[in-house]
Amino acid sequence: MTSFPLEPGSTIGILGGGQLGRMLALAAGRLGFDVAILDPDPDCPAARMAKVAIAADYDDPVALKALADVSDVITFEFENVPARAVERLLGFGAQVAPNAGALAVAQDRVEEKTFLNGAGVPTVAFAAADDAESVARAVERFGPPCLIKTRREGYDGKGQTWIEHVADAEAAFARVGSKPVIVEAPAEFTRELSVICARSRSGEVSIYPPGENHHEAGILRRTHAPAEITPSALEHAEQIAARILTALDYVGVMGVELFELEDGRLLVNEIAPRVHNSGHWTLDGCEVDQFEQQIRAVAGWPLGPTAALAQTEMTNLIGDDVDDWKKLIAEPGARVWLYGKREARPGRKMGHVNRLRPLKD
Amino acid sequence: MTSFPLEPGSTIGILGGGQLGRMLALAAGRLGFDVAILDPDPDCPAARMAKVAIAADYDDPVALKALADVSDVITFEFENVPARAVERLLGFGAQVAPNAGALAVAQDRVEEKTFLNGAGVPTVAFAAADDAESVARAVERFGPPCLIKTRREGYDGKGQTWIEHVADAEAAFARVGSKPVIVEAPAEFTRELSVICARSRSGEVSIYPPGENHHEAGILRRTHAPAEITPSALEHAEQIAARILTALDYVGVMGVELFELEDGRLLVNEIAPRVHNSGHWTLDGCEVDQFEQQIRAVAGWPLGPTAALAQTEMTNLIGDDVDDWKKLIAEPGARVWLYGKREARPGRKMGHVNRLRPLKD
Repeated sequence: MTSFPLEPGSTIGILGGGQLGRMLALAAGRLGFDVAILDPDPDCPAARMAKVAIAADYDDPVALKALADVSDVITFEFENVPARAVERLLGFGAQVAPNAGALAVAQDRVEEKTFLNGAGVPTVAFAAADDAESVARAVERFGPPCLIKTRREGYDGKGQTWIEHVADAEAAFARVGSKPVIVEAPAEFTRELSVICARSRSGEVSIYPPGENHHEAGILRRTHAPAEITPSALEHAEQIAARILTALDYVGVMGVELFELEDGRLLVNEIAPRVHNSGHWTLDGCEVDQFEQQIRAVAGWPLGPTAALAQTEMTNLIGDDVDDWKKLIAEPGARVWLYGKREARPGRKMGHVNRLRPLKD
Repeated sequence: MTSFPLEPGSTIGILGGGQLGRMLALAAGRLGFDVAILDPDPDCPAARMAKVAIAADYDDPVALKALADVSDVITFEFENVPARAVERLLGFGAQVAPNAGALAVAQDRVEEKTFLNGAGVPTVAFAAADDAESVARAVERFGPPCLIKTRREGYDGKGQTWIEHVADAEAAFARVGSKPVIVEAPAEFTRELSVICARSRSGEVSIYPPGENHHEAGILRRTHAPAEITPSALEHAEQIAARILTALDYVGVMGVELFELEDGRLLVNEIAPRVHNSGHWTLDGCEVDQFEQQIRAVAGWPLGPTAALAQTEMTNLIGDDVDDWKKLIAEPGARVWLYGKREARPGRKMGHVNRLRPLKD
């Protein structure tokens, strides 16, 4: 029977062995924990830093049993963990964090926004739609342009499309695969912010300063943190994060993407129940980074400090950006993180660079 | 055939899988490298963070061949690597850093001080002695009290003893096992400093600010860094480090232990051709720590910056000190490193804590 706080030398199980799993493994290793990775790819980045690597599908019951057997607590590097995988882990007596409810909410965009509004957290207006006709009705109601996204799956801009006219509804619904969708009213936002926050097993909440995100071709390109933000917007962002974490009885790190409107109001775009790309700046810009914070939270340890020590610009190395590695490792003040991926396919996140300068007064 | 700089995704082989190997593995992982560990203990701390773990004696030819086969470059976490192990690795075509000459010098205290003096680096006066009689002659020459140490092996105060009177020579020689020794003249030093320095494959030298070390029962207890030091002593320390690295055609990180005398002069006590306990403060006190610096050097990458970002006090957690882990992980500003060792035996280094405060002006 697992008891918290986990003793050093305990094993943290992780579903998913990409770069997030790898950076979680590095954080766990620093604190004296061992790591077990379950991922279909035996050569995935995190498996190569782990004591135990199990190569199998995420819903393979034998593999899940093996992971449960070696792990004192199990967490995730991605939100689309099959619900039955979590059920199986719980059935094997495993401790799982964050909880199944948080995963379920994050896996369905309609559930997510319904939950958020119920918790008093503002989002854009939205409607669920299962066919082209109900998409058209929603677009008529909100007024175009509207964004439609598949309710489930999809990331980095995949599985979503804009509708410019009501008459486009049928074509747009077909473009996203004629699957159940969410229709989102247009938001006149001026920028995207994100907040990396965490909640411990004792209910303690900690929040990193918000970062400002810039995307290219639907993929996060840069985060500047701390973002320049008014005191009232900061207070609102922190309030939103705390509400979400508490309402979900959440344990772990969460990424909350926010739209800032012209009038300064904040809407939540989406939540990611895991460490988040827009939090990579904390690796060099904070004393305790988001990966150590996640390990601390799921291990039942107290959370670490979240203040920024520097003004940090995080730039993703996407696809063949990583070919510049020789230049980057020679750049004074550039802190390079490389993920050990074997092949630099277009759109693939291969690493990132943090560039630091002194904090503004 | 290995070519430098090593591409991300290459494999760094490490002889020795203790805490130094583990922290090297974490640094390598950050930069996208894989790690292969050779250590007799299959459950050693570093093996649990490595892609490849080979459990065998350090001079096992089959194991050394396996390590050479998977590694693009091989380095060490300890200096007492058997010379024939290095020869074998070189025979298998492996790239090895630091070089065999540096290891040989560091393995024999007489060779070490002879080399240092030859490179223009001051040490205490010393003499080699193979029997009690020559020990007595040396003590007579230097005047007691003298320290005798076995020429080879010995660390954390093991294999050494003081001689208070010439008549003690025989008993003292027996106490260290009647092995070939070095007899050292007394040094009236006021404190011990150490300098962590590095040299790259292109001959670039970088030096961290010196730290001030405090021992208890022969084991390093605390390092304060940067040490308060006069500009001329700092210049001398840097000159000493650069001379040693260059004279050895060294590649990698080295720890240089210094005695500071009352008149401000510096003598070298010993050199460690590896990352060093007194450099653990760099893990939280510098942008690029000594472990990343070592990986950069042996991989043929440019060295990173070495300036201190904070005034750091590093405290070792020795033996059951680690039982305080619950208190330490809750201490604001304490950066805890735990090594994942299974058993807290007396005198065993289990972890360390870095406590940071702003730099003095």
